[in-house]
Amino acid sequence: MLKVAVNGYGTIGRRVADALELQSDMELAGITKWTPDYYAFLATQKGIPIFAGDEAARQKLVSSGIKVAGLVPDLLSYSDIVVDCSPEKGEQNRKMYEEFGKRVVFQGGEESSIAECSFVAQCNFEEAHDRKYVRVVSCNTTGLCRILKSIDDSVGVEKAIATLVRRATDPNDTKKGPIDSVVPDPVELPSHHSEDVKTVLHDINLTTMAVKVPTTHMHLHALAVKVREPVLEKAIEGVSRATRIILMSSKQGHSSTSTVMDYARELGRPRGDLYEAAVWRESMKIEEGWLYLFMGIHQEAIVIPENIDCLRSMTGLMDSSSSIQATNRSLGISK
Amino acid sequence: MLKVAVNGYGTIGRRVADALELQSDMELAGITKWTPDYYAFLATQKGIPIFAGDEAARQKLVSSGIKVAGLVPDLLSYSDIVVDCSPEKGEQNRKMYEEFGKRVVFQGGEESSIAECSFVAQCNFEEAHDRKYVRVVSCNTTGLCRILKSIDDSVGVEKAIATLVRRATDPNDTKKGPIDSVVPDPVELPSHHSEDVKTVLHDINLTTMAVKVPTTHMHLHALAVKVREPVLEKAIEGVSRATRIILMSSKQGHSSTSTVMDYARELGRPRGDLYEAAVWRESMKIEEGWLYLFMGIHQEAIVIPENIDCLRSMTGLMDSSSSIQATNRSLGISK
Repeated sequence: MLKVAVNGYGTIGRRVADALELQSDMELAGITKWTPDYYAFLATQKGIPIFAGDEAARQKLVSSGIKVAGLVPDLLSYSDIVVDCSPEKGEQNRKMYEEFGKRVVFQGGEESSIAECSFVAQCNFEEAHDRKYVRVVSCNTTGLCRILKSIDDSVGVEKAIATLVRRATDPNDTKKGPIDSVVPDPVELPSHHSEDVKTVLHDINLTTMAVKVPTTHMHLHALAVKVREPVLEKAIEGVSRATRIILMSSKQGHSSTSTVMDYARELGRPRGDLYEAAVWRESMKIEEGWLYLFMGIHQEAIVIPENIDCLRSMTGLMDSSSSIQATNRSLGISK
Repeated sequence: MLKVAVNGYGTIGRRVADALELQSDMELAGITKWTPDYYAFLATQKGIPIFAGDEAARQKLVSSGIKVAGLVPDLLSYSDIVVDCSPEKGEQNRKMYEEFGKRVVFQGGEESSIAECSFVAQCNFEEAHDRKYVRVVSCNTTGLCRILKSIDDSVGVEKAIATLVRRATDPNDTKKGPIDSVVPDPVELPSHHSEDVKTVLHDINLTTMAVKVPTTHMHLHALAVKVREPVLEKAIEGVSRATRIILMSSKQGHSSTSTVMDYARELGRPRGDLYEAAVWRESMKIEEGWLYLFMGIHQEAIVIPENIDCLRSMTGLMDSSSSIQATNRSLGISK
């Protein structure tokens, strides 16, 4: 059993912890907390071992009635590997991981230079094998990698241009904007996403533009792809065959990101999470050699299967196809 | 003096009426109203002659204290030409206009088949000359025509792909959504905008994708243009030289559609209207022969100058350059 520490228990950390509990070859060694917030109480209710960020944090947690199993060094000593889900503090944490000689999965909020390679399971599973530090890329990058790989495999990608309409913040946040505004982010083109995709799909020709809008659920991508073989049926077949991408039909009422998230809730998965990139089937269209489509990305959930697969690739627990199948089965992802 | 009737006094009608009052070669013959809403009272305060939609409407208006100058047929008899600003009821109204033998400027909400040609002043002014029915295209189409014409004039447009991030509704509307959602509109690609642009720029190679987001101010376009001459300075120079397009700089704090609208309010124009398409200078970038940029469109205001110029083109009052100059001067549009 691979003993995995989850450092950071926010949007991603909570989900990775739950996903770890569902794997038969892994064990959740514990999570870390600094403050006695409702996340900490929920973890306690679930019986997850909680390790305090430092001594002051331990006292705060204990005096709030949270049972603390030890401090972060105790967790690291006990664990085989770490998933760093800290809020973009991976660089700062790395020294500590090095001291303890631990392998680490970092998240996409970090610079790509923090790790030896970046990772999307169905694109470059083998690249993470035997590495010490690997970065699971961000939600937007993960979605772009999945769809571009599937299109490249079926009809070949010559060039791609994507406009990312990004949710402003997550549903549990009330501090950030915008309200009633569209924010080019960044104004200077292209956005960083195209370079980030290239850390996984090294030879892809992609340019990205991104804006932020006042929503909390899902990013929406408008994608234009110059394909080598402009055959729509083949492209649709390729997307529908690919793992972790689902085709949503407007004929079944999928008119927006809201209906897609509603569908995900009805699937009965924890938190209503959608691990798959969601492509609108009727949006797929080929015109003058270019394939167009709309795709939705559940920003809180899409990278969860990648974190599990990344652990298996780094440690050699399973090969690509076995790991993806095992992860999919555990999370309820099917075609 | 060209006597102009404005049929419909909503978002566009109110603005066209005010713009007409500023022209030295035109006279606002009157507007039409069906209900005694605050628009009707504002028109009364401004001394604008109000004509009732029918006898029942006349009684409703009069009993609310609105002075009524007559019925719609009275307005049409007195006028030389009509600007139809009805809420997509142009087709229904057209029979009446035909009976009275009146020329008509229709708006972009109508099908292009309602008129003999479509119109954007700086693109095809001459095409409307001596026509009986002309359609000023929609706000999004007007913005796309202006920018693509300017790029084509400077560096040549080979192909263009635009993603339109559309405001959900106008600021005075509280009925429509979406809230916290991104709506592909339509899901089936491409959107109608590319075909609509071709009613003005007949030979342009353009594909458009559109989504609706929860904002009320400005559409934002993410534009990718394969240019014949990939020289950024030349493209920027072309855009900055073109009329009715302004370059906004992120270095001056233009970080979103909100700052652009705030800037427009500071200009002191009526209603804080921005008649120009607003292009972020720092977004303009050439990569592998493709020019990328972000552009904002004030949906309530951008077509107002076109309506005035269209009247002049149809009636032969002025040539293209004189009319555009006269309209710009009257509305405070300068470079």
